Amino acid sequence: MIERLTIIGVGLIGGSLARALRKVGAVGEIIGCGRGWPNLERALALGVIDHATDDPVRAVQGADLVFLAVPLGAMANIFNSIKHALAEHTIITDGGSVKSSVIEDAQRSFGFVPNNMVPGHPVAGTEHSGVEASFASLYQNSRVILTPLANTNPQATNLVERMWRACGANVIYMSAAHHDGILAATSHLPHMLAFGLVDLLANMQDNNEIFRYAAGGFRDFSRIASSNPLMWRDICLANNDALRVTLQKFIEELHNLTDALGDPSGTQLLDIFTRAKTARDHYLEQLSDEP
Amino acid sequence: MIERLTIIGVGLIGGSLARALRKVGAVGEIIGCGRGWPNLERALALGVIDHATDDPVRAVQGADLVFLAVPLGAMANIFNSIKHALAEHTIITDGGSVKSSVIEDAQRSFGFVPNNMVPGHPVAGTEHSGVEASFASLYQNSRVILTPLANTNPQATNLVERMWRACGANVIYMSAAHHDGILAATSHLPHMLAFGLVDLLANMQDNNEIFRYAAGGFRDFSRIASSNPLMWRDICLANNDALRVTLQKFIEELHNLTDALGDPSGTQLLDIFTRAKTARDHYLEQLSDEP
Repeated sequence: MIERLTIIGVGLIGGSLARALRKVGAVGEIIGCGRGWPNLERALALGVIDHATDDPVRAVQGADLVFLAVPLGAMANIFNSIKHALAEHTIITDGGSVKSSVIEDAQRSFGFVPNNMVPGHPVAGTEHSGVEASFASLYQNSRVILTPLANTNPQATNLVERMWRACGANVIYMSAAHHDGILAATSHLPHMLAFGLVDLLANMQDNNEIFRYAAGGFRDFSRIASSNPLMWRDICLANNDALRVTLQKFIEELHNLTDALGDPSGTQLLDIFTRAKTARDHYLEQLSDEP
Repeated sequence: MIERLTIIGVGLIGGSLARALRKVGAVGEIIGCGRGWPNLERALALGVIDHATDDPVRAVQGADLVFLAVPLGAMANIFNSIKHALAEHTIITDGGSVKSSVIEDAQRSFGFVPNNMVPGHPVAGTEHSGVEASFASLYQNSRVILTPLANTNPQATNLVERMWRACGANVIYMSAAHHDGILAATSHLPHMLAFGLVDLLANMQDNNEIFRYAAGGFRDFSRIASSNPLMWRDICLANNDALRVTLQKFIEELHNLTDALGDPSGTQLLDIFTRAKTARDHYLEQLSDEP
């Protein structure tokens, strides 16, 4: 399906794409590009990539498809580096968790958004990072959101869709702005809350004891606070606008909860908790209904 | 170890204690007491209890140990029902997630806190409830916090400690107030945040889509929002004072995060996220160090 694939950023996301495509024989050779040689050498040793380079210009030469899996803050630099090195037929896609910012970065670097660029977001991951954390089944039954623009070449979109399907993912289309609003609520806000909660507890006087007596609920709740801080700084900054709106709404929700605590009958608390439980149980049902 | 054990409230917590003690042969007969006959009948059918009654007075007669595993809002009623039916040698303990409120309820019902009452809290659970959700290994390697008072009979405390150890738990002692402060931070606040977040998302315009595109991180983060709303209403009301303080601190943390989002350099965000990741990774290490 893809003769020559270039992956810029061979970590959890990039490495898992390579492994998944390799497993189903959907890729010829894979060129890995990154700034850290130890990680690239591990990627070579693990057989995740066939060739390694730290030079994006060399990496993209002759590529049929270039997948950018670098932190959002590095996208602009990569676009600037590769813009004159891309062949006309080369398709570009990415794995960034915010789509408007990637599109703006491309616009700024190229002067326009290339017809062969298909912005995308595989909604998958774990709290671990680096190529050693990658695995072939990461995208199995996951969702990949593509946000092509009006000028995007349909053949480019089609290849990117087929690539993700080959990895076992379900591909969904929506606008970049819609994507960013939804992800602010379901992913970026929860990460901020988890980071914020663990930070708050760590700053408390009895922090050692606090963590010692935490139960399983806290472990699950805070799992995403073990995510890569740099990557999440970039995501939060890139989705700043949507995230601030959502954060503000959540602060209002916490004020409502504080008010509810002041009502000794507990009616409001019970209403909120019951609505939440119903919604989450329904949401889990939805998930398990899917293939 | 315990000839005749009475469990009032045969759900996840009470049922798991029964199963665990039975498994290691640390209990003679088990009397289950509850208000819902269908649940009691399932408990009988599953062999979790030997006898069932919906009358607390009959349930505690001749008991060596009475374990109260009812929602916090029901504790006062139970104390009022059983106060004249308890034999002198009967030891009482409980599984309530807030300790000051249980102690106050006992004080109000008995006019004093009985010498044979050992307030306790097994820090364990899942988001499921009812006797069918109970299992013998729930307390294995978990922590049980006991908060005896100055007048508590040391022999009573000793038996309760041995009972929990027999279930595989580690027993820890602290004051009721200290317990309530710590649990507000590590358990009650996270539950409020999870309930609040799911409620917020459920009330958003695109709620169906929002839940559909939620990734694994959200699933874990929100797991505790599938907990029993009635039980959690009681916990939050019972630990109202400590919880309001913690909630207020968390709202301040969210204001800090909002400010941090306004700094395009991302320095503050990176600081907060890095501190949180370091604390959580350290906390996980602590957990895995333990037997």
